[in-house]
Amino acid sequence: MLFVQKFGGSSVANAERIRNVAGIIAEKFLEGNEVVVVLSAQGDTTDELLEKAAEINPDPSKRELDMLLTTGEQQSIALMAMCLEGMGLPVVSLTGWQVGLRTDASYGAARIRRVDTERLRRELDKKRIVLVAGFQGVNKFDDYTTLGRGGSDTTAVALAAALHADRCQIFTDVEGVYTADPRKVPGARKLEEITYDEMLELASMGAQVLMNRSVQLARRYGVELEVLSSLVRAPGTKVKEVSKNMEEMKITGIAKDEKVARVTVVQVADRPGSAFRVLNAVSRAGINVDMIIQANGRDGANDMSFVVAETDAEAACRALEERQAAIGFDHISVDKDIAKISVVGAGMMSSVGIASLVFEALNDEHINIQMINTSEIKISCVIDAASADRAVAAIHRKFFEQ
Amino acid sequence: MLFVQKFGGSSVANAERIRNVAGIIAEKFLEGNEVVVVLSAQGDTTDELLEKAAEINPDPSKRELDMLLTTGEQQSIALMAMCLEGMGLPVVSLTGWQVGLRTDASYGAARIRRVDTERLRRELDKKRIVLVAGFQGVNKFDDYTTLGRGGSDTTAVALAAALHADRCQIFTDVEGVYTADPRKVPGARKLEEITYDEMLELASMGAQVLMNRSVQLARRYGVELEVLSSLVRAPGTKVKEVSKNMEEMKITGIAKDEKVARVTVVQVADRPGSAFRVLNAVSRAGINVDMIIQANGRDGANDMSFVVAETDAEAACRALEERQAAIGFDHISVDKDIAKISVVGAGMMSSVGIASLVFEALNDEHINIQMINTSEIKISCVIDAASADRAVAAIHRKFFEQ
Repeated sequence: MLFVQKFGGSSVANAERIRNVAGIIAEKFLEGNEVVVVLSAQGDTTDELLEKAAEINPDPSKRELDMLLTTGEQQSIALMAMCLEGMGLPVVSLTGWQVGLRTDASYGAARIRRVDTERLRRELDKKRIVLVAGFQGVNKFDDYTTLGRGGSDTTAVALAAALHADRCQIFTDVEGVYTADPRKVPGARKLEEITYDEMLELASMGAQVLMNRSVQLARRYGVELEVLSSLVRAPGTKVKEVSKNMEEMKITGIAKDEKVARVTVVQVADRPGSAFRVLNAVSRAGINVDMIIQANGRDGANDMSFVVAETDAEAACRALEERQAAIGFDHISVDKDIAKISVVGAGMMSSVGIASLVFEALNDEHINIQMINTSEIKISCVIDAASADRAVAAIHRKFFEQ
Repeated sequence: MLFVQKFGGSSVANAERIRNVAGIIAEKFLEGNEVVVVLSAQGDTTDELLEKAAEINPDPSKRELDMLLTTGEQQSIALMAMCLEGMGLPVVSLTGWQVGLRTDASYGAARIRRVDTERLRRELDKKRIVLVAGFQGVNKFDDYTTLGRGGSDTTAVALAAALHADRCQIFTDVEGVYTADPRKVPGARKLEEITYDEMLELASMGAQVLMNRSVQLARRYGVELEVLSSLVRAPGTKVKEVSKNMEEMKITGIAKDEKVARVTVVQVADRPGSAFRVLNAVSRAGINVDMIIQANGRDGANDMSFVVAETDAEAACRALEERQAAIGFDHISVDKDIAKISVVGAGMMSSVGIASLVFEALNDEHINIQMINTSEIKISCVIDAASADRAVAAIHRKFFEQ
């Protein structure tokens, strides 16, 4: 079997952790598997490099920032290679350039164009463990580029796709994907399997286990992912096209996102195109709008509310106020004291009554639902922030603990 | 004019020093020159990386060490590029791979095979300052290699040769090459010019301004070198084929090397080939022998003495003792309490009486000469270590201060 394993910065932060990870890699290799390992920069390395840069130039070019930052992952792979050498194992480390990871020219947040697997295959054929610097590639100018947030996960998935790996294991500091946040919901269960779509919904809902970008890439190329812990030796959660839970379990997980805000545009003029003008003003400012409701108001005007990321709330207000005359509204109010609870499950598609169970759970707890949004595999409710943990626990009991 | 400038690790050790060096680069560029700059890793970076490696594996492969160490220079060029960007100057940084510096496969101490100047020329044609990571290249396997000690100087000379640069400026913490160590000899004078051969003799004699390797490379390709200070803005010393001092000044400089040892093989059997067998045993152990004398002894046996680097003395003894029976000698004695004083000057070739002036100077100070060696441009004397500084001062007075 061919495995791609990915370890993040905290997993290789010091000599002791490097040794721990080397043990995981060695185990997989000594079982007779081919192993390709993607590593991030050690612990605080990237932040330290950014500080050094800021001291010299507060606004450096992204090209030179990438030139600086790519050294972090290169150091990680060299150190890990030395550790595996010390255990007597055959190993070789390769940078983004050496591994043929070609990107577009967007320094700082490059997209992967292709992976030339020739060198990778040659090293695997020599029965070596191959360590690859994550987060980095080279563009058509032969310049170094970085892949932006979640870049090392994306590297791992891209290599797994290019090599047709049997599985891409993403090692993190959690043991897998849970039905709810296990620190908050004592009855939360680790899921054995989950679909790409469910993972995408959970990730975008604030369950920060995997970045959406790498899950999307995995879905596109059919790469089977596994999320597992680098500290606890236990099977994690597999992310794949069809999960065997689909028919059995109505929902997969419950996520909570408190970093949201509700923006209410009060007394929008009741004329054709008002809603379009409101949303257009916001989206032109580059802000994603999530849920939208329009409430009937007095005097031929409606209130219109939508949900944005908390960090985008001010920008959304500014964008609207700049066009107040053209749109026609009285004023804007912002409520950051809300939370979005999302119930996710591919099983919803072939089942009914999920929504009413969710509402029943919230009703039992006397929690008021401010906004509702549904998709084929998700139901989201906006409630007041103070009730969020209680809401998750109530829904979890309704679906998983009866 | 096309200049290649090289700055060592201490010249770029922190933000302040990077700014200082950026000023030197900017000045040369704004005068209308093409400028290629070679940088070493910042201050202690290399040592810190070696420490990290040692913590994980005390004996890592040279390939992975090179993978680790090459990140140091890459960080330097990125930071310097950011600094020059901040000054509004056009600049691009390039690693050894990007600059097409191809080496042989000897990790840790690779030799340069060739430099593909295509990318360099393209960037220079765009009127950019080009920053190049020193000390590093890539071999035929597309693996990173380092050039060993003095590697960044060698990178600079190699780029200057490949680009047919008008001058290669090596910036150091001294202002140039002096007639003697200015910290020890108050009357020491900075030389305006010096020949490659003189520089080579001085360097090998312990005047650690330039590594021999880079001077040899410069001589082979006729690259005009200049050694100058990164802290004091003043002309340095030019190193070239023919110096204008050749006819005027009989000698160029006086160097002292205290890191030498005299090995004496006592009572070597007086039969044909004994001297060969002694020297062969030592050279087979990879040890360079410098000066050799044979003294007539008693009983049909001679004492034979030679000078080696202090660090090689023990190995030389072991090599000889292993073959004691075959060679035939009584025992070996080692004296580390010696110094080698060398008087260097291309003018010696066309002049007479230099040697007698040197001997006169030492005689005036009642310093005993243990061994003597001469070449076309050098006279070396071995004396006791305690008299070394006094000897240099006396010779300096005789040639430069009368």
